[in-house]
Amino acid sequence: MGKKYVYLFQEGNADLKNLLGGKGANLAEMTNAGLPVPPGFTISTEACNEYYNAGKVFTDEMNRQAMDALAALEQQVGKKLGDIDNPLLVSVRSGSVFSMPGMMDTVLNLGLNDQTVNGLAKKTNNPRFAYDSYRRFIQMFSGVVLNVDHYHFEHVIDHVKEQKGITEDTQMTAEDWQTVIAEYKVIVKKQTGEDFPQEPMDQLKKATIAVFDSWNNQRAIIYRRVHKIPDHLGTAVNIQSMVFGNMGDDCGTGVAFTRNPSTGEKLLYGEYLINAQGEDVVAGTRTPQPIVTLQQVMPEVFDQFVAICNRLESHYRDIQDIEFTIEGGKLYILQTRNGKRTAHAAVKIAYDFVIEGILTKEEALLRVDPSQLDQILHRRIDPNAKQDVIAKGLPASPGAASGKAIFDADLADKLANEGQKVMLVRPETTPDDIHGILAAQGILTSRGGMTSHAAVVARGMGKPAICGCEEIKIDLKSNSFTVNGITVKEGDIISIDGGTGRVMLGEVKLIDPVLSDEFVKLLGWADEIRDLGVRTNADNPEDSKKAREFGAEGIGLCRTEHMFMASDRVPIVQSMILAENEEERLVALEKLLPMQQEDFEGIFREMAGLPVTIRLLDPPLHEFLPHLEDLVVEITKLQMNPNADARVLHEKEILLRKVRGLTEFNPMLGHRGCRLGVVYPEIYEMQARAIFQAACKLAAEGIVVIPEVMIPLVGHVNELSLMRKLVEDTAKQVFEELGQEIEYKVGTMIEVPRAAITADEIATEADFFSFGTNDLTQTTFGFSRDDAEGKFLHYYVDNKVLPENPFAVLDEQGVGKLVDLAVKLGRGTKPGLKTGICGEHGGEKQSIEFCYRTGLDYVSCSPFRVPIARLAAAHATIKFKK
Amino acid sequence: MGKKYVYLFQEGNADLKNLLGGKGANLAEMTNAGLPVPPGFTISTEACNEYYNAGKVFTDEMNRQAMDALAALEQQVGKKLGDIDNPLLVSVRSGSVFSMPGMMDTVLNLGLNDQTVNGLAKKTNNPRFAYDSYRRFIQMFSGVVLNVDHYHFEHVIDHVKEQKGITEDTQMTAEDWQTVIAEYKVIVKKQTGEDFPQEPMDQLKKATIAVFDSWNNQRAIIYRRVHKIPDHLGTAVNIQSMVFGNMGDDCGTGVAFTRNPSTGEKLLYGEYLINAQGEDVVAGTRTPQPIVTLQQVMPEVFDQFVAICNRLESHYRDIQDIEFTIEGGKLYILQTRNGKRTAHAAVKIAYDFVIEGILTKEEALLRVDPSQLDQILHRRIDPNAKQDVIAKGLPASPGAASGKAIFDADLADKLANEGQKVMLVRPETTPDDIHGILAAQGILTSRGGMTSHAAVVARGMGKPAICGCEEIKIDLKSNSFTVNGITVKEGDIISIDGGTGRVMLGEVKLIDPVLSDEFVKLLGWADEIRDLGVRTNADNPEDSKKAREFGAEGIGLCRTEHMFMASDRVPIVQSMILAENEEERLVALEKLLPMQQEDFEGIFREMAGLPVTIRLLDPPLHEFLPHLEDLVVEITKLQMNPNADARVLHEKEILLRKVRGLTEFNPMLGHRGCRLGVVYPEIYEMQARAIFQAACKLAAEGIVVIPEVMIPLVGHVNELSLMRKLVEDTAKQVFEELGQEIEYKVGTMIEVPRAAITADEIATEADFFSFGTNDLTQTTFGFSRDDAEGKFLHYYVDNKVLPENPFAVLDEQGVGKLVDLAVKLGRGTKPGLKTGICGEHGGEKQSIEFCYRTGLDYVSCSPFRVPIARLAAAHATIKFKK
Repeated sequence: MGKKYVYLFQEGNADLKNLLGGKGANLAEMTNAGLPVPPGFTISTEACNEYYNAGKVFTDEMNRQAMDALAALEQQVGKKLGDIDNPLLVSVRSGSVFSMPGMMDTVLNLGLNDQTVNGLAKKTNNPRFAYDSYRRFIQMFSGVVLNVDHYHFEHVIDHVKEQKGITEDTQMTAEDWQTVIAEYKVIVKKQTGEDFPQEPMDQLKKATIAVFDSWNNQRAIIYRRVHKIPDHLGTAVNIQSMVFGNMGDDCGTGVAFTRNPSTGEKLLYGEYLINAQGEDVVAGTRTPQPIVTLQQVMPEVFDQFVAICNRLESHYRDIQDIEFTIEGGKLYILQTRNGKRTAHAAVKIAYDFVIEGILTKEEALLRVDPSQLDQILHRRIDPNAKQDVIAKGLPASPGAASGKAIFDADLADKLANEGQKVMLVRPETTPDDIHGILAAQGILTSRGGMTSHAAVVARGMGKPAICGCEEIKIDLKSNSFTVNGITVKEGDIISIDGGTGRVMLGEVKLIDPVLSDEFVKLLGWADEIRDLGVRTNADNPEDSKKAREFGAEGIGLCRTEHMFMASDRVPIVQSMILAENEEERLVALEKLLPMQQEDFEGIFREMAGLPVTIRLLDPPLHEFLPHLEDLVVEITKLQMNPNADARVLHEKEILLRKVRGLTEFNPMLGHRGCRLGVVYPEIYEMQARAIFQAACKLAAEGIVVIPEVMIPLVGHVNELSLMRKLVEDTAKQVFEELGQEIEYKVGTMIEVPRAAITADEIATEADFFSFGTNDLTQTTFGFSRDDAEGKFLHYYVDNKVLPENPFAVLDEQGVGKLVDLAVKLGRGTKPGLKTGICGEHGGEKQSIEFCYRTGLDYVSCSPFRVPIARLAAAHATIKFKK
Repeated sequence: MGKKYVYLFQEGNADLKNLLGGKGANLAEMTNAGLPVPPGFTISTEACNEYYNAGKVFTDEMNRQAMDALAALEQQVGKKLGDIDNPLLVSVRSGSVFSMPGMMDTVLNLGLNDQTVNGLAKKTNNPRFAYDSYRRFIQMFSGVVLNVDHYHFEHVIDHVKEQKGITEDTQMTAEDWQTVIAEYKVIVKKQTGEDFPQEPMDQLKKATIAVFDSWNNQRAIIYRRVHKIPDHLGTAVNIQSMVFGNMGDDCGTGVAFTRNPSTGEKLLYGEYLINAQGEDVVAGTRTPQPIVTLQQVMPEVFDQFVAICNRLESHYRDIQDIEFTIEGGKLYILQTRNGKRTAHAAVKIAYDFVIEGILTKEEALLRVDPSQLDQILHRRIDPNAKQDVIAKGLPASPGAASGKAIFDADLADKLANEGQKVMLVRPETTPDDIHGILAAQGILTSRGGMTSHAAVVARGMGKPAICGCEEIKIDLKSNSFTVNGITVKEGDIISIDGGTGRVMLGEVKLIDPVLSDEFVKLLGWADEIRDLGVRTNADNPEDSKKAREFGAEGIGLCRTEHMFMASDRVPIVQSMILAENEEERLVALEKLLPMQQEDFEGIFREMAGLPVTIRLLDPPLHEFLPHLEDLVVEITKLQMNPNADARVLHEKEILLRKVRGLTEFNPMLGHRGCRLGVVYPEIYEMQARAIFQAACKLAAEGIVVIPEVMIPLVGHVNELSLMRKLVEDTAKQVFEELGQEIEYKVGTMIEVPRAAITADEIATEADFFSFGTNDLTQTTFGFSRDDAEGKFLHYYVDNKVLPENPFAVLDEQGVGKLVDLAVKLGRGTKPGLKTGICGEHGGEKQSIEFCYRTGLDYVSCSPFRVPIARLAAAHATIKFKK
């Protein structure tokens, strides 16, 4: 017997998700649980992959198995595909392993043709319904299978309505739909050169292949890239007997979540439309009713639906996103899946499930994706700020954002690539807009509900969105919208608050987020479980305070150069750099010393009792000087001006000569890091003195200070031993001067490959290693981040030359190997060696997992990423603890 | 019994070189061989090191052993140190393991004081000699031990001569020297506050310590750095009873080499002075007589000397550099050591020793230091070029050079550091001038012979030198010299030919070197022995031809970008770079194709039958564009000029925008190498097409072409697999078009750490690896060579933060580890994987040894370094063959 490609719903179950896709597996699971699921069968993802491997061939064996399953389905429902009197109609839907809502193709009402439509009319005694269904089928099939663009059909219905002087679809009669059908068929013939296919078996095979093909359409590829879904999974195809929500007022269709996917509240959340097909709800063309109103309209159906919702949630132990249809007062469940939710909701639901006894703490933690938390840690609108509210829509996806109003996805994408912040404003969004949504700060639509395409996609991406904001009148011709007499043109800045639905004119002031109680408790559980430390990168007392509130267990990276950048200090720093000799330099350093000391005092105070890793001066000195090109322009102008002050020109020329002398071809690889300390020891000495004087002063006040002095950019052990000696000598001197001793450590960044390779030698002089994975990535790849991200890295990731941007996700195969090597070599020399990471990877979940597996002691990240790191660290422990 | 610190000459032998230093070991060896060596003893290098370890303490035990040895010496010669009637006089000389001529201190005539000088006068019946010796001793001891500068004494003798109306030392009487002595003693008292030490035991101890201390004087440290002599070896001290060459006309002193150290000819080569002490010869203050004339003056002594020379050369199996003194007609040998020689001489002597049956081929090869060969592979003066010869001196060290005449070592050093070429012109050089000699292109002195300080040091460094050019009159006040009415001022350019002794005005045209027969034969032996391939880096047919003549076995690196730099091509290359789209770019590439093809044809023709590795375009594109700063100045000027052509300004502004768009923060780490090929495949495709079209064309002529296409800067296997496919597809297309097939390889540079770390993956797509160790060093250290060498690398090497400049000598501990790893990983995937190196290290001997030990198949270097690489490869095989 050949491979099994096709499964009747009753043959599958939820465990076969990889084979049947999420939708198929759940339909099977529900069928076997006795829920009211219209019968059908699934063609497996394996078939899809073999289809592609064979060069897009739907094999005879696949076809044979599909025909067998169809026969079984026909038997089950007592109808036959293509039967003139009693025709079976089916839906053909994609269903991949991971949900990709709206990205792939669907065909409904398949099986209709010029004959069967009459049979359906007769059998249902509802010719209007039958012809409406047929025109829908022609339109959908033509779009999905025959590649006839949607807009070819658009004016036909309007034209009929105009002629009849009506405005609503519901006013259309059976005859009107027949007129539409006739015109549709002419259009198909004109566009494809062939008649609309009348053979139902032919329709079915073509639709199946079209769904397979839609796995590789542009928007599906982009969606997979964004959501990191592997390309090789393929999609299953679900063929299911149709039920109809559009057969009359005892019919309807809807979508509901078992809990609120935006807030996590334990309340049924969803929408429905009476006398409509599912596409009407999802497409957002008609604004649907809240699900609770169904209780009044169809109380029995509602009660039955609530019971099913509870059952499904218990069964799957997660919030469910359920599609249903009511045909002649009978409820059918068409789909259930784990509901996509905002980070807020994810946190609350995970917490509630533990309290309700459904999940363990570990399971609950794993339910919250750390990378999603970004959205609730984003800044939000300051409630005290002036807000020029111009409209209010549905709060479809929480968060606040500002940007230029842009009415076209392509333009939004283009401008965002140029670095502009844009707000995508559309009547409604379709899957073709995905790149525009991705590019925008937020989304505003005038139509569609909480489960419309825009809402679902925005929530999935953690982007703020307001949907169904019907007050605003969008004019796509002039690219503007008007609301209450105000006109917002393309490029005008607007702000939205996706949590309240408010649309505001101009940019609105944002403030720091506050963590919800549930979030704080969930993070508490994370802390109980994780055994990877979390520190923060902070350069000032304010950030230190915030990070500590967010749970940081110390500072992993305090960049001292940020302190040099303060506007009142730059002139002193410049005079230090431009000093002609050591004496002059010492004068400037003398002035900087009390300033640096004050910085450190503030940070030590906030971090009392916790370790504070301070990195000595790192960047090349010319970063603190005027820009060379500006100087050249200035001098050229002075030279050309006969009235210019010769003295000023002379001074500028001297400055230019010095700036030129300090300018480097490749500053990233130039005179920076400890190379500054080695050549100008007086700079590092001043910094060390500031650290120890600050530490002694606070210690005298009884504050526990734990300084860790970090030497940057070490490539050879000799650099570290020289700088270590300098720090130790300075400490000793300060301790003697002040009569106070402090425990401290001296360690190094591992940020060039040579440091990693020779970590055994370097460890002899280091109390700790901190992996500077930003620079280590740059040197390991030979990529300058500044250049690569603007020039070719985008291309590399888009075209899968690299699996990820290695500056976002640590490159385990390359950079990771060096980190692993350095940890092993370093601990070989010094078994207790403390190791951490302070590159931006320290706040990224995959990279944090890597750090845990590699045996690092801590990660360090920006203050707002500390909660993410705490959760990701717990994930790592749960997943990889030996 | 304590450690033995002191060895009588008869207790030592040549094998104890590490303990006794070269000089002490050879004195011992000669003593035991029965040669006429004045008796003495050696204080060991171990004593020196313990002296330093103890914080510069000459221990009682050392002193006791020295006193015992002194007593034995006194017994042996029948004189006593400090004995008023029969005083023993000794010399106290340094003697390190490796010869450092003139770098450390020496004291002669030690033992003289106000009493013993009279005893010596009486005993020798030569008061003039005795007082002359005493004044010499005071002067030397004061300089070396008491730190009284030489110049304090300078005018004293001149003053006495003036008063007496005489000009020559030989005219000075005993009384005159007594006057000098009296004044010298006043000077010492004035400068040191104490009387000149009269106690001989005290003199001896102080002199010994001074010699120990001189191990760490500035010039010794610099010399060791240049010659890579470890700092921890220490020096021995040789205390030897004095013999006198300045006691009359039956006395004399000299230095001779057993063969000509400049040409290698088997002829006694040296100089002597009658009635003089050794310092007179070495210092170059009197121009000495050629050694052969001694045959007339003292035939018996000469014969005896020749016999000893032959005996010593046979004994040591190497050219000997021998110091001798004749006292009262009796010959004494004061020192022998292996003679320093030019590369020319080294080659000839090594070859001759094999022919003479003294050495095996392997031994002979090891006698020639590959790094020394540089000098004979340097270009030399074109004999047909116009030469404005202004003077002729002694051809002291061969080679040709041009540079600005500079009369001061400090200034020469400073200007050379600024990148200027200088010629050091001095009356004579002293060890204090070492940094100036090091900095200069060549040396010209008006005094001193072939064994003068300048000559010895220049030969050791392989620098051209002319000595004793007495025609030129140097005026150090005006910093100029005059010769035959011509005045050469500071900064004027002169040229010298150290092989002929000719001094020329201006810069003289140089031509390629021709290899001597002996050198060709020696290299032939190297080829027989070595099992490491040697290729060349060549970008044009001329270099390819030259390299093949020099023995290259193929091209290891052909940089295609050099072909883009030709002035007639730059506009086309620019239009390719500035193309707005692929179509425009293709037009430019179409024009470049035939040019590149022609390049490759020429190279393939020269390298017929040998592999040619061609690297596709590597540097960032903006290297081919106008310089941004120049453009900015130009535009600013146009903007300020009210009459400027607006169209020109507009065009310039557009150009500026494009240049700015291509300008990178860190071009080394930017959009270059295969990243260009990935993003603009049409560029690499054009290059591949040019390669294969050229190859097919030549193959059709019956020429064997072996192209190896090399993809630069690969960091991830995906880059290589994409580019490999592009090359293969292009090859296939060309082969089909031309009906010709060529065998070829596709491989990659390993030049970023990630490539080395993931070499197992990369090897799946590579037929060969070529290590680009220049870039690999940059990325492994995180050093930009352009910046590091100008900014801090010098400091690092000078201060021993790094043992070597890693761009000159491959860093085995760091970069080398990556190379080793990559070879192991690569061969793990593909056992036969061909590996080579094409960085500049491929022509450096230590790095070549590393390549051999690591199992590389070949090294590749510039054409002129090919012979060096062949010899170094043979050395590696001889030393490390398992």
